This record gives sequence, C-alpha cells and structure tokens, in this order.
Amino acid sequence: MGEVMKNKQVLFKDYVTGVPKESDLCIGESTIALKLPEGSNGILVKNLYLSCDPFMQFLMRKTEGHGVFSSYKPGAPITGNGVAKVLESNHPKFKKGDYVWGTTSWEEYAVLEKPDALFKIEHTDVPLSYYTGILGMAGVTAYAGFYEVCHAKEGERVFVSAASGAVGQLVGQFAKLRGCYVVGSAGSKEKVELLKTKFGFDDAFNYKEEHDLAAALKRCFPEGIDVYFENVGGKMLDAVILNMRLRGRIAVCGMISQYNLSEPEGVKNLMLLIDKRITMRGFVNFDYYPQYNKFLDTILPPIREGKITYVEDIAEGIESVPAALVGLFRGRNVGKQVVVLAHE
Amino acid sequence: MGEVMKNKQVLFKDYVTGVPKESDLCIGESTIALKLPEGSNGILVKNLYLSCDPFMQFLMRKTEGHGVFSSYKPGAPITGNGVAKVLESNHPKFKKGDYVWGTTSWEEYAVLEKPDALFKIEHTDVPLSYYTGILGMAGVTAYAGFYEVCHAKEGERVFVSAASGAVGQLVGQFAKLRGCYVVGSAGSKEKVELLKTKFGFDDAFNYKEEHDLAAALKRCFPEGIDVYFENVGGKMLDAVILNMRLRGRIAVCGMISQYNLSEPEGVKNLMLLIDKRITMRGFVNFDYYPQYNKFLDTILPPIREGKITYVEDIAEGIESVPAALVGLFRGRNVGKQVVVLAHE
Repeated sequence: MGEVMKNKQVLFKDYVTGVPKESDLCIGESTIALKLPEGSNGILVKNLYLSCDPFMQFLMRKTEGHGVFSSYKPGAPITGNGVAKVLESNHPKFKKGDYVWGTTSWEEYAVLEKPDALFKIEHTDVPLSYYTGILGMAGVTAYAGFYEVCHAKEGERVFVSAASGAVGQLVGQFAKLRGCYVVGSAGSKEKVELLKTKFGFDDAFNYKEEHDLAAALKRCFPEGIDVYFENVGGKMLDAVILNMRLRGRIAVCGMISQYNLSEPEGVKNLMLLIDKRITMRGFVNFDYYPQYNKFLDTILPPIREGKITYVEDIAEGIESVPAALVGLFRGRNVGKQVVVLAHE
Repeated sequence: MGEVMKNKQVLFKDYVTGVPKESDLCIGESTIALKLPEGSNGILVKNLYLSCDPFMQFLMRKTEGHGVFSSYKPGAPITGNGVAKVLESNHPKFKKGDYVWGTTSWEEYAVLEKPDALFKIEHTDVPLSYYTGILGMAGVTAYAGFYEVCHAKEGERVFVSAASGAVGQLVGQFAKLRGCYVVGSAGSKEKVELLKTKFGFDDAFNYKEEHDLAAALKRCFPEGIDVYFENVGGKMLDAVILNMRLRGRIAVCGMISQYNLSEPEGVKNLMLLIDKRITMRGFVNFDYYPQYNKFLDTILPPIREGKITYVEDIAEGIESVPAALVGLFRGRNVGKQVVVLAHE
C-alpha cells in the first residue's frame, strides 16, 4: 500500500478572464499513498521546485482549441514545470532516486502516468533549481531564440524586451558571450540596475519612464537594431521596427504586454518589413527540446566557469504559489520566479 | 549635332499627399538632339514600352529619406521602368541597336548617363513588352518571393492577394507549376474570373464582396494556408494570419491597401506567429537582380511552351501615361499596366 502522506495541492478554481488573481487558485489538502497504483507504467515523484511561467495564464482561460496546451480543469491541481525526485518508477527511462525536470502536477507528491516527456537530470553539480529555468524551459527558449532563430553575429546590435525575466537575462548574456552590443528594457528601476550591473547589458531602460519608446531605442541604438528578441509586443514592437537595420531579425518569443488586453494593440509599422528586408519569426521552445544535449554543451561550461549569472526569485512553500504565480503576470518578480517545496 | 526631334515628356507637377490624381502629372513637349553630348559615357535611347508600377506613388510624395528611391523633382520628367532601344552608346555594355530594360526617363527619347543598372535584352523571340513585367521587375519579384522567400513545396496551400496584378498572376502560375493549391483575391468580378479561367488559380474571391475575410479564407482553405504572398496588408493580413498553418511562411512584397492611409491599420493577430511558428519576411526585388539569368532559365521555357499566361493592360501613347498610372493606384488595370510609345 505504501505510506499514506498528506499531500497539499495547488487547485484551480474556475476559468479566468483578464489577469488572473490570487483567489483564482487555492491550496487544497488531500492524501496520497506513496506507492504506484497497480499496473501503472508511470513514476511517483516528490516535487522539489516549481517553475512559475508566463504561459500558465493561458491555461487558466477557457481556450478555443488552437493553443498548444489545454486549459486547466476547475477543481483539479494545476500543472506546470518543475524539478522532482523519483520515489518509485515503473517506467524504463527512470529509476528511484533520479532527479527529473519537466511538466509535473503541482502538489507535494504526484503520480505521473506519462513521464516520457520529462528530462532526467544528469548534471547535479549545479543547483537543482536551475532546471526550472536556466537549464530548463527558459534556458532552451533563450538558446533557441538567440542561436537558432536570430543567428546573431559578433558585433551585431541586440535588443531584448522583458530583459530581466527568466529568458531575457539569458539572452542578454548569450549576446555578450557572442560579442554583441546588447540593450534591455524592463519595468522598474531595480530591474534596469540589475541588467546593467549584474547581467552585463551594455545599456538598459525602464519602458514605464519613457514617453517615446522609439526615441529611447534611437538613443540606445543610434545605428539601429540588428536583432530583436521579442517578449512584449504592441507599442514596443512598433518602436523596434522603426529602429531596425537592414536585414534585421526579430525572434518572436512572447508578447506579454498583449496577453490580458480585451483586444490586442494593432502593430502599424509592418510596411517597413519590406524596405528593411526584416524577418520576423515565431518560435516555441519545445520544438528545440530534441537539441537539449547540444544546449547543455553550450551552457554548462560558462555556468561552471562563472561566466553566466542567473537570478532567481525564490518563494518558499506550496502556500506561496498563488501569490508568486500571479505576481509574475504583474511583473513583480525579479529574475526567474521559483517556488521551493523541498530541497530534496 | 544629330537630328533635332520633338520629345514629349511625362512631367511631375508637385508633391502629392494621398492617392495621386491624373492632374499631378502633365505631358510636356521639348526637343532633343539625337546625339550623345560631348564626353558622355551614357546611352541615347528611344523608349518603347513604359511599365506602370505601384512603387511609383511613393516617389510622388516628399519622402523623409528611409526609402529606397528618392522623390521625383517637380517640373522634371518622372522615371520608371521601361523597355528602350539604344540609338547610340558610349558605354561598353551596350551598342547601337540593343534593346534594354530598366529604369528610364519617361519621355520619348532619353539620354541615360548611368546605364550600368540596365539589363541588355538577350532574348527577343518573346514580346519586348514582357520586359516591363513578366521578364522584368514584376517577374523577378514573383520569382524571388515565391521561390527564394516562401520556399513553397509541392502540395502546399498558397494564397496570393492582389492576385490579378503583374506580380500576383505570376505567383499563382508559379505555384501551379510547382504543384501547389493556389487561391487568389482581387477587387472585381472580372479579375476573379480572370484568375480562375485564365491563370489557372484553383479558386479566387472578390475581397470587396466578402464582409468577413477570415471566413472567406476559411472557405477556400479549410485546412489552412502554408504560404501567403502578401501584396495588400491591413485587414487581409490579419485574416490570413488567423488562417495560417503551422510553420507557415509569409513573403511580404507589398501592402498596397495601406499606402494611402493617413495612418496604417494596426495588425492585431501577430501573437499567433508564436504558436504557429510563422515566418514573415520582407523582400525587395532588386536584391535578386544578380540572379536574373537564373530567373530567365526558370521562366523562359514555360513561356515558350505556353505554360504561362500573361495578361497586359496596354495603353497607347505617352499622353495616356497619367490616366494609366493613376488608374493602377486605384486598381483599374486588369493585368500588367503598360504604356506603349513605339513598337521599335
């Protein structure tokens, strides 16, 4: 039967419109037998670190089916990325004692019946929490967008919006490692300072304090922008297009400024794509998961050599999930938002 | 000195705002000595066919300098593409009797002091007027967008807007030659009929009669669009993005619906670029001029074999230029708008 444990869960209350609120989630308490069910081909895990990610707000809405994931179910635990320890495995890819990262059910203990998409963590000389971000989804996102979509070259001028977030901070550092000039935008003085002092951006600005985004970009890029790593959309995208150079590339990773508007802002400067021969390309991180080992080969050495800095905003305990997750949608986090449930 | 001839010219009156009118141009009459000036390194030509092109409306405005060409000069003859016969040459690339195509001064006879960018016409077994379109700028544009930007593959679903124009009719036929399913939009019943009966489009619709463009596209492409050859922008682009398939490609050639608005319409569906992994790429035909011979190798055989149909809307005489050119900006032409000045 296995020991029966209390098992706190992050429960989804009901479909949301607009920006999710803390009260759209609640903490429930159930029990779980620490034993895989009879006939299960899955794994039983103890969740250690949960990764708060912007895409999760979409799963809190009733979607109409074109999305990549399906909506959360009212009354059930939410799912999301996390790092977990395998307590028991009936799956050939994993064994007891392994650490894994990927999509997990957000509760203290979970039975994952289809663990095929989880990654086994092979390198434990770096903090396990890194697999919620720099060595997980955010890392692959930054890597794919910067190296595989933008093809930024040494000496090129790179702009990153939402630059202090989990993805942006990495893109900026990849750009510096490649010898680019890189500028980031963020939404507070504190974040802007972090970009310049901690992550090595050449320059940064607080978009909330600029009444003319195009002028701010012109000031930072008098000769224009070669590569834009797009995280925000809307007015910022229009301002960037105005400031792009010939044959510029825009990797479209997210448009966080648009997600909670009743109607998206229209982007007006697309005609300039022609004269400037601009390429805009949308991408989704998990298309690049098959290249995960190549990604690790690229990123582990500079992490171990201290050449990449990574800032996490860590909240403690499953009870802190609603506030941490909802804070992310409002830009309250500084760096990667993680919730730690247990350290091992 | 050379024979002195009357030389009618198409003169530009003054900078225009909004859609150019016939009265923004006038026909002037000067004289010209049919002899190159002393010390000239240029060529003297007799213009035969003039090519009315959408981009010319930009040159009628006072531009602010980011554009590719500079504005016309009030009081001077306008310039544009054309086919001409060389009457005299001091330039090593050309000799008397050659036919050329490229940018010429819009008058009956012209001295072209910098003819380097002109193409010498090597194949005269096809109509000379074709070098204003299918074998000239429009042809290279369709070729570059379809083959080099979209990379459309056999069996893919291709949509072309402004499909009965000089470029669109070719893109549709390239798509059919490649084994694609192709649908076009145009602005009149007559043009839609032409697309279906003459150019072999699988389907076509009149965008002016569709109150819901997204629904019209859904009807024509129940499984979505792989490749969009973008000529119009605005609401059509939004509707297309909604109907694009995973990993779709948009070749941005022009946005003719936006050129004469005081402010461009905003495009609202760009967020879908992400989930759908769409690539949008702006391109300019003359980047592909170095591949002109490769283009001819592709297009001449099907023209000679009668596998490509080409419709020209031919006006006679230099006096018809203002009406023909302005009609183009209002969609009055059916097929490539040409003005014939002389047949040889």
